[in-house]
Amino acid sequence: MRKLLFEMAYDGSRYHGYQVQQNALSVAEVVQDAVEVVFKKREDIVGCSRTDAGVHASQYFFHMETALQIPPEAAVIALNNCLPGDIAMLSCTEIPPDKAADFHARYSVCWKEYVYKIWNSKVKNPFLQDRAYQVKYPVDAELLDRCAREFIGTHDFRGFCSAGAKPTENYTRTIYRAGVHREGDLIEFRVAGDGFLYNMVRIMVGTLLLAAEGKLKEGDVTRVLASLDREQAGITAPAAGLYLNWVSYTPFGEENPVK
Amino acid sequence: MRKLLFEMAYDGSRYHGYQVQQNALSVAEVVQDAVEVVFKKREDIVGCSRTDAGVHASQYFFHMETALQIPPEAAVIALNNCLPGDIAMLSCTEIPPDKAADFHARYSVCWKEYVYKIWNSKVKNPFLQDRAYQVKYPVDAELLDRCAREFIGTHDFRGFCSAGAKPTENYTRTIYRAGVHREGDLIEFRVAGDGFLYNMVRIMVGTLLLAAEGKLKEGDVTRVLASLDREQAGITAPAAGLYLNWVSYTPFGEENPVK
Repeated sequence: MRKLLFEMAYDGSRYHGYQVQQNALSVAEVVQDAVEVVFKKREDIVGCSRTDAGVHASQYFFHMETALQIPPEAAVIALNNCLPGDIAMLSCTEIPPDKAADFHARYSVCWKEYVYKIWNSKVKNPFLQDRAYQVKYPVDAELLDRCAREFIGTHDFRGFCSAGAKPTENYTRTIYRAGVHREGDLIEFRVAGDGFLYNMVRIMVGTLLLAAEGKLKEGDVTRVLASLDREQAGITAPAAGLYLNWVSYTPFGEENPVK
Repeated sequence: MRKLLFEMAYDGSRYHGYQVQQNALSVAEVVQDAVEVVFKKREDIVGCSRTDAGVHASQYFFHMETALQIPPEAAVIALNNCLPGDIAMLSCTEIPPDKAADFHARYSVCWKEYVYKIWNSKVKNPFLQDRAYQVKYPVDAELLDRCAREFIGTHDFRGFCSAGAKPTENYTRTIYRAGVHREGDLIEFRVAGDGFLYNMVRIMVGTLLLAAEGKLKEGDVTRVLASLDREQAGITAPAAGLYLNWVSYTPFGEENPVK
């Protein structure tokens, strides 16, 4: 059996998240339907991450096993022909046989980066509906950048995890980099880490927006983190602004990723 | 009666064009429904231009008359509350009483600018479906820029007009500026003129793409224009890449627009 690693991207607006669900359209279901057509058999696909309803992915990986000898490039073209316009297959790599047993699209991930987009304007933007979160009051992006840097490091993030999540033994995650950048009316929060709890990035954004509203000041993110208290952190910012942006199978800072 | 001029923007993906139609959703119909809620009466709205199914507008104007004394800024907020996310009201101006009789959202337009977006990559982009036209072969944007400049000036554009159009007495239009610019994998054709025939911008793009394919060379656009022959020009490029980008009520090159 060959193990193939597919790279894709999707606009999540229409989907009820990545994961297959009863009675709701998911990205995985649509991809699996395309895989069934191209590979003549319904193969399981194993995704690198869950994404919630309305969340986007600029980069997403899944692996699958197949006996079919279709070249990777041909598989990409064939899948794109079966997929709707909002899901794009970007590339396919065959995992070398000596590494295939150990490689897993989800468990082999070393780090991921998310981007959260805020449209900071009073003016409604019809091209960013479902693609960014509109914040109408003026946001000081430089202040948010300084606050975001307080997330960097290894912390217990239980205060930044939605109540709906299953109890996790380990709430400790390491954030390698975090920052906020403004380009015109668009503000982007970028955060890279070894893993993220349920809704963690969206709660980070909600907390940064408390700083934007003057309800938190520099140094307070550190205090909120230390409190381990969900109530101290901000709201869960809407899904539409969130993008899974980068998924790496190589330790942070090292070159030559698998893909 | 007050005459109000509204500025809006819309993502045309979901709509069967601007103009109200039987059995198909149009931008004008959705706006008129919102106007009816806000102004307590179904008022006629007069748009600045037609746009085809799937065409977008980064700037679009319409005027309407009303007896209601609602402040312009409040009307913008109220309309946005009634409109879906893909239509955004940007501003509203009350035309001064001494100018109201002469002002007309369509007939008073001095010039318009369109942008056409080409996603020039082999890689499918899920965030640009319905927002750009994908061209997979490499396009020489600098060559296209030189060819585009041949459109500048006053020409008989009957060769750049769809057969479906009604016979027009006057096919002469003046193009004030035209050019092509690349930013990464995104190529933009911009063209400003005193008016445009049916499908004219999309046929201009189809013709420029003939140059990209090596079927036309520099100087040939001038020859195609002079032929007055639709067959000599290129295809009508798809609607999804087209944006009405700027509408001016002041002669080209003059400051202080009405809006």
